[in-house]
Amino acid sequence: MTKLQYAVIGMGRFGTSIARKLYEAGEEVLGIDIDEERVEDIELSVTHAVVADTTEEEALKSIGIGEFDCVIVAIGNDMQASILTTLLLKELGVKKVIAKALGKHHGQVLNKVGADWIIFPEKDMGERVAHQLLSPNVLNFIELSKDYSIEEISVPSSMTEKSLRELDIRANFNITVIALVRNGDIIVSPAPDQIIHEEDILVVIGNKENLSTFAHRE
Amino acid sequence: MTKLQYAVIGMGRFGTSIARKLYEAGEEVLGIDIDEERVEDIELSVTHAVVADTTEEEALKSIGIGEFDCVIVAIGNDMQASILTTLLLKELGVKKVIAKALGKHHGQVLNKVGADWIIFPEKDMGERVAHQLLSPNVLNFIELSKDYSIEEISVPSSMTEKSLRELDIRANFNITVIALVRNGDIIVSPAPDQIIHEEDILVVIGNKENLSTFAHRE
Amino acid sequence: MTKLQYAVIGMGRFGTSIARKLYEAGEEVLGIDIDEERVEDIELSVTHAVVADTTEEEALKSIGIGEFDCVIVAIGNDMQASILTTLLLKELGVKKVIAKALGKHHGQVLNKVGADWIIFPEKDMGERVAHQLLSPNVLNFIELSKDYSIEEISVPSSMTEKSLRELDIRANFNITVIALVRNGDIIVSPAPDQIIHEEDILVVIGNKENLSTFAHRE
Amino acid sequence: MTKLQYAVIGMGRFGTSIARKLYEAGEEVLGIDIDEERVEDIELSVTHAVVADTTEEEALKSIGIGEFDCVIVAIGNDMQASILTTLLLKELGVKKVIAKALGKHHGQVLNKVGADWIIFPEKDMGERVAHQLLSPNVLNFIELSKDYSIEEISVPSSMTEKSLRELDIRANFNITVIALVRNGDIIVSPAPDQIIHEEDILVVIGNKENLSTFAHRE
Amino acid sequence: MTKLQYAVIGMGRFGTSIARKLYEAGEEVLGIDIDEERVEDIELSVTHAVVADTTEEEALKSIGIGEFDCVIVAIGNDMQASILTTLLLKELGVKKVIAKALGKHHGQVLNKVGADWIIFPEKDMGERVAHQLLSPNVLNFIELSKDYSIEEISVPSSMTEKSLRELDIRANFNITVIALVRNGDIIVSPAPDQIIHEEDILVVIGNKENLSTFAHRE
Amino acid sequence: MTKLQYAVIGMGRFGTSIARKLYEAGEEVLGIDIDEERVEDIELSVTHAVVADTTEEEALKSIGIGEFDCVIVAIGNDMQASILTTLLLKELGVKKVIAKALGKHHGQVLNKVGADWIIFPEKDMGERVAHQLLSPNVLNFIELSKDYSIEEISVPSSMTEKSLRELDIRANFNITVIALVRNGDIIVSPAPDQIIHEEDILVVIGNKENLSTFAHRE
Amino acid sequence: MTKLQYAVIGMGRFGTSIARKLYEAGEEVLGIDIDEERVEDIELSVTHAVVADTTEEEALKSIGIGEFDCVIVAIGNDMQASILTTLLLKELGVKKVIAKALGKHHGQVLNKVGADWIIFPEKDMGERVAHQLLSPNVLNFIELSKDYSIEEISVPSSMTEKSLRELDIRANFNITVIALVRNGDIIVSPAPDQIIHEEDILVVIGNKENLSTFAHRE
Amino acid sequence: MTKLQYAVIGMGRFGTSIARKLYEAGEEVLGIDIDEERVEDIELSVTHAVVADTTEEEALKSIGIGEFDCVIVAIGNDMQASILTTLLLKELGVKKVIAKALGKHHGQVLNKVGADWIIFPEKDMGERVAHQLLSPNVLNFIELSKDYSIEEISVPSSMTEKSLRELDIRANFNITVIALVRNGDIIVSPAPDQIIHEEDILVVIGNKENLSTFAHRE
Repeated sequence: MTKLQYAVIGMGRFGTSIARKLYEAGEEVLGIDIDEERVEDIELSVTHAVVADTTEEEALKSIGIGEFDCVIVAIGNDMQASILTTLLLKELGVKKVIAKALGKHHGQVLNKVGADWIIFPEKDMGERVAHQLLSPNVLNFIELSKDYSIEEISVPSSMTEKSLRELDIRANFNITVIALVRNGDIIVSPAPDQIIHEEDILVVIGNKENLSTFAHRE
Repeated sequence: MTKLQYAVIGMGRFGTSIARKLYEAGEEVLGIDIDEERVEDIELSVTHAVVADTTEEEALKSIGIGEFDCVIVAIGNDMQASILTTLLLKELGVKKVIAKALGKHHGQVLNKVGADWIIFPEKDMGERVAHQLLSPNVLNFIELSKDYSIEEISVPSSMTEKSLRELDIRANFNITVIALVRNGDIIVSPAPDQIIHEEDILVVIGNKENLSTFAHRE
Repeated sequence: MTKLQYAVIGMGRFGTSIARKLYEAGEEVLGIDIDEERVEDIELSVTHAVVADTTEEEALKSIGIGEFDCVIVAIGNDMQASILTTLLLKELGVKKVIAKALGKHHGQVLNKVGADWIIFPEKDMGERVAHQLLSPNVLNFIELSKDYSIEEISVPSSMTEKSLRELDIRANFNITVIALVRNGDIIVSPAPDQIIHEEDILVVIGNKENLSTFAHRE
Repeated sequence: MTKLQYAVIGMGRFGTSIARKLYEAGEEVLGIDIDEERVEDIELSVTHAVVADTTEEEALKSIGIGEFDCVIVAIGNDMQASILTTLLLKELGVKKVIAKALGKHHGQVLNKVGADWIIFPEKDMGERVAHQLLSPNVLNFIELSKDYSIEEISVPSSMTEKSLRELDIRANFNITVIALVRNGDIIVSPAPDQIIHEEDILVVIGNKENLSTFAHRE
Repeated sequence: MTKLQYAVIGMGRFGTSIARKLYEAGEEVLGIDIDEERVEDIELSVTHAVVADTTEEEALKSIGIGEFDCVIVAIGNDMQASILTTLLLKELGVKKVIAKALGKHHGQVLNKVGADWIIFPEKDMGERVAHQLLSPNVLNFIELSKDYSIEEISVPSSMTEKSLRELDIRANFNITVIALVRNGDIIVSPAPDQIIHEEDILVVIGNKENLSTFAHRE
Repeated sequence: MTKLQYAVIGMGRFGTSIARKLYEAGEEVLGIDIDEERVEDIELSVTHAVVADTTEEEALKSIGIGEFDCVIVAIGNDMQASILTTLLLKELGVKKVIAKALGKHHGQVLNKVGADWIIFPEKDMGERVAHQLLSPNVLNFIELSKDYSIEEISVPSSMTEKSLRELDIRANFNITVIALVRNGDIIVSPAPDQIIHEEDILVVIGNKENLSTFAHRE
Repeated sequence: MTKLQYAVIGMGRFGTSIARKLYEAGEEVLGIDIDEERVEDIELSVTHAVVADTTEEEALKSIGIGEFDCVIVAIGNDMQASILTTLLLKELGVKKVIAKALGKHHGQVLNKVGADWIIFPEKDMGERVAHQLLSPNVLNFIELSKDYSIEEISVPSSMTEKSLRELDIRANFNITVIALVRNGDIIVSPAPDQIIHEEDILVVIGNKENLSTFAHRE
Repeated sequence: MTKLQYAVIGMGRFGTSIARKLYEAGEEVLGIDIDEERVEDIELSVTHAVVADTTEEEALKSIGIGEFDCVIVAIGNDMQASILTTLLLKELGVKKVIAKALGKHHGQVLNKVGADWIIFPEKDMGERVAHQLLSPNVLNFIELSKDYSIEEISVPSSMTEKSLRELDIRANFNITVIALVRNGDIIVSPAPDQIIHEEDILVVIGNKENLSTFAHRE
C-alpha cells in the first residue's frame, strides 16, 4: 500500500487530535492553521506545518492542496471559513474532503458545497456519553442497526464465580457472548465451563432491549 | 429500576447533545446554563431548564443540586468556571460528577477537585476520526485491549459472491467473523455456506494488525 | 395580473432601495432585518416590516416565508448569515431567491445552496461607472452582446446645427440612429432632415468599436 | 486621443471594480488605499498602487494628485474621510472628482465641498434590481425620459414562431421594435417577415406603460 | 431689545460653558446632546434640554430648530456629526450657525457647508496661554492689529512708589497709559502725579514691541 | 534677557498650539507626548520632541525636567496622568507648573499637588464665545474688574459719518474712547473732530452696563 | 462609649473585609460601591448598602457623608476615582479619611488632598509574608522599633522537654520570654521551672538580630 | 545556614513586595511574570527576572523550577493561571508552594492541587485595618489565641505623668505591661516607678476584652 497524503486544516483540539493520531500511525500529515502560534505548537506532531488562510484560493494553490488525497476541515467556530475552504478544496480537485459541522444547517451547506463526509463531533460525543450514563456497566459499544448492538459490559457482581454454562446468558437474556476480556487478554468465544471472575468484561451481541436488561443487572 | 436524576451544566453543543439523548431515553434531566438565551433554546428538550451561575454556591443550593445522582459539567471554554463548579458539586454532596476537560492539565485539576469521570471530547472524537481514515472500510470499532479489537468492516469487493467457507477468513487472516449485517438485519454467527453480497458488512474480532490487513484488502 | 409577494431581507442601503422601489410600484413588500432600529426606519416605505434572525428556521417559518413568491437576500457583510438564510429559504419552498454576493466565492456558495439569481452590486456598479468614464459622452447603455450595444450619447459639438442627412452617421460610423432625445421628448426613428441642436441626445445601435469612435468625437 | 490619468481612492469592491475595468480598457490607473493589505491585493490589476491616508494634505501632495485628470473617491464607510479627501482634491486642483455617497446628506456635503459627480451605488443598483423584478422578462433597459424607455425583453411564449408582421407589435402595443438578439447576433431593424423563435430577445422603444403591458404578456 | 433664542448642540465642557453663560445672562437657551446622561446634567443650567441625534433631519425638525436665531454646534470629536449637523441647520433655515472646528480642514468643510462663524477653541486658548507665558507680567490683552495691542500689565517692582510723571512712560517706552487698576477700582486716564504702588496694574496701549520691552522690565 | 526653557507635556490641539506659539516667538521648547505618532507630527514646530510617559519618575529625570523654568501640563483626557505628572514635576523642582484642568474638582486636586497656574480652556473659551454672542458688535474685550471693561466695538451704523464731538460718547453713554481702529491702523486718543466711518472700530473703557448699552445700539 | 459611624467606599475584597469585620464588631457600617451587583452581594454583611458614584459631589451629599466619623476609601484600581473621592470627602467635612494607595505616587497625592491615613495593603502584606518566609519558625510579630521586635516563635525541636531555667534563653540569646502559648492557653511570664513541650509557642521580646538567631535554631 | 532559593510568580504589587523584601534580606530571588514590561521594572530588585507563561509545563521546566526550595504564586486576578501554575509546580517537585487566593473557593482549589500555604492578602489586610479602627489607640497587635492578645497601645492622656505603680494597670484592667516604647527606645519590663510621658507607647498582654477596655480609655 502506498502512503496517503493528509492535510488537516484548523489546529484546535479536534484537528490536532486527528493530525497526531495519523502521524503516529506513520502517515504523512500537513497541519494548517491561520494562527502562527498554533502552527508552532503542532510542529513536532506532524510531518510539516504551515500558516495559511485557507479561504484564499492562492494560498491553497501555493500549498499544492490539489495533490492531497484527503483533507480534513477541522476549523473551530468560523462557519464562513469552513464553508469557503470546503468549496475551494473541491474546486481545486481534492478527492476526499471531511468537514466538521457546528450544527444541522452548517452540515447541509457543507454537503451542498461538496464535502464528502460531515462530522458533528460534539453531538456525536455527547450521544456516546449519554449512552454510557444510561447503561453504567457498558464500557463501549457498536450500534449495528436500529435494534442490534455489540456491547462491552462489566460483569454484574451477582454473576461472578459462576461458569458461563450456569449463567446460560443466551437463554436468560437472549443475547450471545462473543468474547471475554480478562486483565487485558481476550478470550474469543469462551468455553461454556469458563468461570466468570470479578472485573471480567463480557462482549455480547444482541437486541438492544435485551442488552439493556442484562447491563442493568446488579 | 427507579428513575435517576441528571443535571447537565453548560448547554453548548456537547452538553445539549447529552441532555437531549438522556431526555429522549425517558430520564429526568435538568439543563443549566449561565446564558438565558441558551436556556430558552433547550427548554423543549429537557424536563426543566434554569439559568444559574454554577460558580456561586448559593445558586447551586437553591437548585437543590445536592439531591442529584449525577451531574455533567459540560462547560465550554471557561476552565475556571468548570473547576469551581466541579469543586462545589462535590462539596454539596453530588455522588457522581462527570466533567469535560479542555486539555491534560485541566483534566488533572478536575481530578484533584473530585471529578469522578473526566472526558476529552474533541481529543477522543479526533482519534475516532483518524482511526476510520486509516482503515477506510472500517465503519465502527471497539478497542478491547492494546492488541485486540472488534471491527465493523465493509466487505472488500474481491470477496463478494463467495461463501464464508470459501473465503476461510479465520485461516487466511486469523480473525473471527462474529456477525453479518445485511440491509439492517443482523445474522449472528453466520453459517459457513452463507454467501457474501456487495454492501454486506462483516463484524469481526481479532488482533489489530490482522484486522488492519483484512480491512485494507480491496 | 395578480399581485406578487416580495420579502427583502437586510435593510441596508441596497435592500432598502429595492424595497422602496417595489413598494412605490404598488407591490406588497415585507421588510426584514435583525436590527430593530433599521426595521423602524423602513416601516413607512414597505407594506410591513419585522425584526427577525433569518438564520433561524423557526423565525422564517413564523413569518410564513414559504408563501412568498420572491425573496431578496440583501444581507450586507455577514456572509455566513447570507448563506444560511438562502439555504433555509430554498428548503422552505421559496420559488425565487435573489441573493447579493460579496465576491466570487461567496457567489459560488450561494449558487450551490440554491440561489436563483446572484447579484454583485458593487462590482456591477463599478463597471458601469468605469464605462461612463471611458466614454464621457455616453449617458447610458445596454450591452446587447459581446460586440453590440445601444448607447445614449450627447451630441458632439462638431455635429450641431446639421441635419441627420448631412451627418450621414450610418455611412461615416457604421451605426444606426434609433431615436433623438430633446428636452425630455423622444423622437423615434427621426427623419433625415431633422436638424441636430446642442444638448440633443442621440440613441444609437451598433458595433461597440464604432460606437466608441463616435462617442469620442468632439 | 491622449491618455487620461485616473486615480481611484478606496480599494473596496466598488473601487476595485472601477479600477480594474479602467485598467483593462488600457488606461493608466493609480490605486490608493489606507490599508496595506488591500493595496497588495490590487497591485496586479492597476498601473500602480500606493498606501496613503488621503485625509492628509502632505500625503496627497507627495503622490502628485494635482496632476491627475480624474480622481474617483470610492471610500467605503468612512464619511469623514470621504468628505476631507474630496475637499483636499479640489483644493489641490484636480479637475474632475467623482465621489461615492452613502446617503442623501452625505451627497449634499460632497456637493458643497466640490465633488463634480456624486454616485449612490447601492441605491442605484437596488433600483435596477427592483425594475427587473417588476418586469421579469426585461433583461436590461435605458430610461430615456420620465415616460420613455428602451427595453431588452425576452419574447413571451405566446408570440414564438410567428412573423413580426403577424404580431404587429406597433399596432397592438404602440411600441417599436429596434432590434432582435438571437444567439448573440444582432439583427438591427428586423424585416417584417422575420419569424420570432423561442429564446429570441426583442429590443423595443416606447412609452413605459405600453412596454410594461408588453413585458407582462405570457 | 427682544429676546434672542439660542440652541447649543453638544453638552461637553465647551458647549456647557457657552450654554451656562448665555442662560445666566437671561437668554433662552436650549441644550441638545445625543447622550441622555449629559442632558440630565445640564438641565438646571438651561431653559430646556433635550436628547436628539442632530444628524437626523427629522429630529431637528421636531425640535423646531428652524425657528432659532442662533445655533452653536459644539460637538466634541465627531467631525462627521459636526458637518452633517451644520449642513442640516443651514438647510432648515437657521440664520446664524456657529461651529467648533477640530482643525484646519474641518474648518474649511464647515465653511463650505455654510457655517457663519467657525471657532478653534483649543488653538485659540493655547495661543492666549503662550502669549501670557511670553509676557509674564501681562495679565490680559487685546490685539488691535498686527502691530498694536492693549495690555493689562502688573507694575514692575522698579517703578513702584514713583509718580507717572517721574516714570514718563510715554517718553521712555513710547506707549500710552489708559487706566490704572488698584484693588479692583479703575482710574481712567490717571493724573500725572498719581503715585504707583505695588500690586497696581497698568492698562497701556502701544506698539507690540514696545509693550513687550515694558512688560519685561523688572 | 536670557532665554527661558519651556516643556509642553501632551501634544493635543491645546498643547500643540502653545508649543508652536512659543517656538515661533523664538523660545526653546521641548514637546513631550506618550504617543509616538504625535511626537513625530510636532517635530518641526518645536526645538526638540520626545516620547515619554510622564507618570514615570525615571522618565522625567532622564529628560532632565528639573532644569526647566516652566512646564505646561496639557494632557488631554487622562486626569490621573495629569495629576501624577504635576505631582512629580513639583517634586523634581520645576519652578512653574501650568496645568490644564478638565473640571472644578480636577482643578482642586491640581492645586493641592502644587500646580502654580490652572487653566480651564474649554470653560474659558466657551465664556468668551458667549460674551461675544451677547454683545454682537463687541470684537474683543478685557475684563478689568467685576464692573469695568475695555471693549473693542464695531461702530453702530447710526453713528457713522459723524464726528466724535457730535456723538459725545462720554456724555451720552458715560464711557471713554481710548482708540480708533481703521483699516488696521490705530489712532490712540482720537481728536474730537475725527469723523467716524463705516467699518471703523472703537476701543472704549467704562462700566460694563454702559458698555453693553453702547454695544447694542444699532 | 457612643457608637461610631463608618462608611466603606469600594466593595472589593479589601473593602468588604474591613466592612464585615467592623459590622461583626457591632459597628454601624455603610457599604458604598458604583457597581450594583457588588452592593447586592454585601447587603447582609453591613448595616446599609448603597450604589453611588463617589466622584460626584451631589451623590456624596445625598448620602449625608459629611455626618460620618470615619470613611474608608477602598477603591480598587481606579486611581482617579480614589483621588477625587478623597478630595470630596475632606471638603464635605469628614473627620477621618483612610485611603488605600496603589503605589508610592498615588500615596503622595492622597496625602496632598487630605487623606488622614494611607494604606498600601499589597505592599504591607507582601512584606509580612516575606518576613515569615525568612524566619520560618516565627508565626507572628510586632516591630516595636527599627531594632526591637516581639515575636511568636515555634519552639525549636532541640529545646523541647527542657525547663526554661535549663535553656536560660536570656543568657544564651539575650532575649526575654514574655509568654508561653500551649494548646490555645496563654501562660504570661512563665515560671523558670516550666518545661517546654513540642508544639509549644514562645512569645519573646528582644533585639531583631538576636531574635533571628533564636528563630533559626533547629 | 545555606542560602535558600526563592521564585516569585506574578510581579504585581503583592509579588513585587515579597520579592523585594526577600532580596533585601540577602536571599536569591527569581522574579517571573508573563508580561515583559513588568519583568523589566523588577529587574533591579531581584537576583534574576524572566518572562514566562507559567501555565506551560515546558516553560517551567526550562527555568528549572523543580530545583527551587520555595515558590510563591502571587498571580493577580487570573484564577485559572494561578490554579494551573500551582498544579504544575507540585508536579515538578517544588517542596513548598505558597499561593495567593482571591476568595474562599479559589483557596479550596489551591489546597486540592497541592498548595502548602494559602494566603488571602486583601481579606487579611482588611481585617488588620478594621481591628485598628476599632481600637484607635492600638498601633499593632499579635493575636495569641481566641481570647488573648499582645497590643502596642498609645498611652491615654488621662494616664500621663503618673508612675506605673500609681496606675496599677494589672489591678485595674487585669492586663500585664511587657514593655515601654519611648522615642524608638525599648524598656523591657519597666520598673514600677517608671513615669509615663505623653507619646509613650505601652506593650501589654492580656484578655482581649480587658485590652479593649484599656485601649478605649481617654
